[in-house]
Amino acid sequence: MTPALETALKADAERLAAALDVLLPEVPGPERRLFDAMRYATLGGGKRLRPFLVLETSRLFRVDPACAIRAAAALEMVHCYSLAHDDLPAMDDDDMRRGRPTTHKAFDEATAILAGDGLLTSAFEVLADPLTHGDAKVRSDLVLALARAAGPEGMVGGQMIDLQAAGLAMDIGAITRLQRMKTGALIAFACEAGALLGHAAPQLHEALRGYAHDLGLAFQITDDLLDAEGSAAEAGKAVGKDAARGKATFVSLLGAERARSQARLLGDQAIRHLAPFGAAGDRLADLARWVVDRRA
Amino acid sequence: MTPALETALKADAERLAAALDVLLPEVPGPERRLFDAMRYATLGGGKRLRPFLVLETSRLFRVDPACAIRAAAALEMVHCYSLAHDDLPAMDDDDMRRGRPTTHKAFDEATAILAGDGLLTSAFEVLADPLTHGDAKVRSDLVLALARAAGPEGMVGGQMIDLQAAGLAMDIGAITRLQRMKTGALIAFACEAGALLGHAAPQLHEALRGYAHDLGLAFQITDDLLDAEGSAAEAGKAVGKDAARGKATFVSLLGAERARSQARLLGDQAIRHLAPFGAAGDRLADLARWVVDRRA
Repeated sequence: MTPALETALKADAERLAAALDVLLPEVPGPERRLFDAMRYATLGGGKRLRPFLVLETSRLFRVDPACAIRAAAALEMVHCYSLAHDDLPAMDDDDMRRGRPTTHKAFDEATAILAGDGLLTSAFEVLADPLTHGDAKVRSDLVLALARAAGPEGMVGGQMIDLQAAGLAMDIGAITRLQRMKTGALIAFACEAGALLGHAAPQLHEALRGYAHDLGLAFQITDDLLDAEGSAAEAGKAVGKDAARGKATFVSLLGAERARSQARLLGDQAIRHLAPFGAAGDRLADLARWVVDRRA
Repeated sequence: MTPALETALKADAERLAAALDVLLPEVPGPERRLFDAMRYATLGGGKRLRPFLVLETSRLFRVDPACAIRAAAALEMVHCYSLAHDDLPAMDDDDMRRGRPTTHKAFDEATAILAGDGLLTSAFEVLADPLTHGDAKVRSDLVLALARAAGPEGMVGGQMIDLQAAGLAMDIGAITRLQRMKTGALIAFACEAGALLGHAAPQLHEALRGYAHDLGLAFQITDDLLDAEGSAAEAGKAVGKDAARGKATFVSLLGAERARSQARLLGDQAIRHLAPFGAAGDRLADLARWVVDRRA
């Protein structure tokens, strides 16, 4: 990771944590447990890749940072809700996430379910609030885009397929489709958000769509590589689970070497989509390089 | 129930089922199970009280029925998601709902969690779609109002309190607050939706808020009465559970007789809020009478 990217990621992650801290306050009364769990599920760190993409693509169009950070926070709420629900015993049954107990382990199952529900709902509340953008059409379009990305034809549908994946004959086409739904759709929204907030011209909007598509696929392939090769300490969560569950992955289908070269190819392709932005796209290019080479 | 109200409820319930059938289609592929569960959770009947309120308040302002039915469907998706999640073993652990197995019994826990997540997400997708209203401000305001009603300060927060209620010393003020969050907020949104879709004048908007407030509270009190007095066959679900769990209810705090007279008082109050609408409010008045006197 380049020092410039590292500094930018860290600064944006701090901005995001500050925004989440305000949007998800500590409250008194019997609903305190719910808010505590929502805070636990979102404020535990993580790479904050998706919020960074919202903030960085927003900068390309000189979006007010106070607006961009709200869209970034809404997206991170959705990402963190999906982790809280996916970790549940009835789903992936994971006890550790980012090096600490998952939400249902730190609280209990009912609270983790409700915290996820609350985060998903609050994400749309944040996007629809006039504070996020003065133009109601932008707010409504953000809601529509995030709902499509996170819903049954996107992330939730992807998780449903993933749960059945061990019993399905998945070829590379099916795995690619699953990835686009389960993780690609939210990454695409992250880049789309900057374009929507900034009333981007159609060809720039399209360029970011291309970047997001290739970046998302590269990210999933390196995720599979890390799961197959990494250690639990590096990943901060259980690894090697896909193989143990008999699930097809990019690595099991392509082999590690071809998977890695495929990720590199996608990274290069992602960077080429950034050409219309000139030097303003440098950090997004650095990010694509890091995604391909990352070790965690 | 008056014959006019019965006819209107039935016709609106049929319109709603037709709209949900289109919005939640049967799909091929490995995500089929998710869509099937979403359909199961929403298309199993029920009184459709909340959609009726959306449609009936929309009629007061001559809202295009094609718009109103979409808002009604979005709200019912949120209501049905909350039932699917609340019925889960980690929550209220109910096996039967509306006289048939709950979603996690008919499918499995993971699918019920995802179906709930999918319904909640799709609800906002429906509201933010330009088909729901041509004015983006109306769409954005609908999203904001539904998210507030359904989120941590509304329904989800109410469910969190309810889960802890057996261990809390709840007086009538605390029970009333719990009800407003857990069930009142969605009923208030139902009436609010018609006003938002119809660009209602502020004093008419306010009149509907008053109606919704009193109706929602009356509804919860009669729900507690039915739980305390009813039979499982009439209610289509398990009854007497509140007492078995040691939870305070309006009935345990006030006694059945005072609870019933309080519900009547609230019903009368709800009807008085409808005065500005003249005869156009007759069906909403009939509904308030039915809520107070209902046996299921």
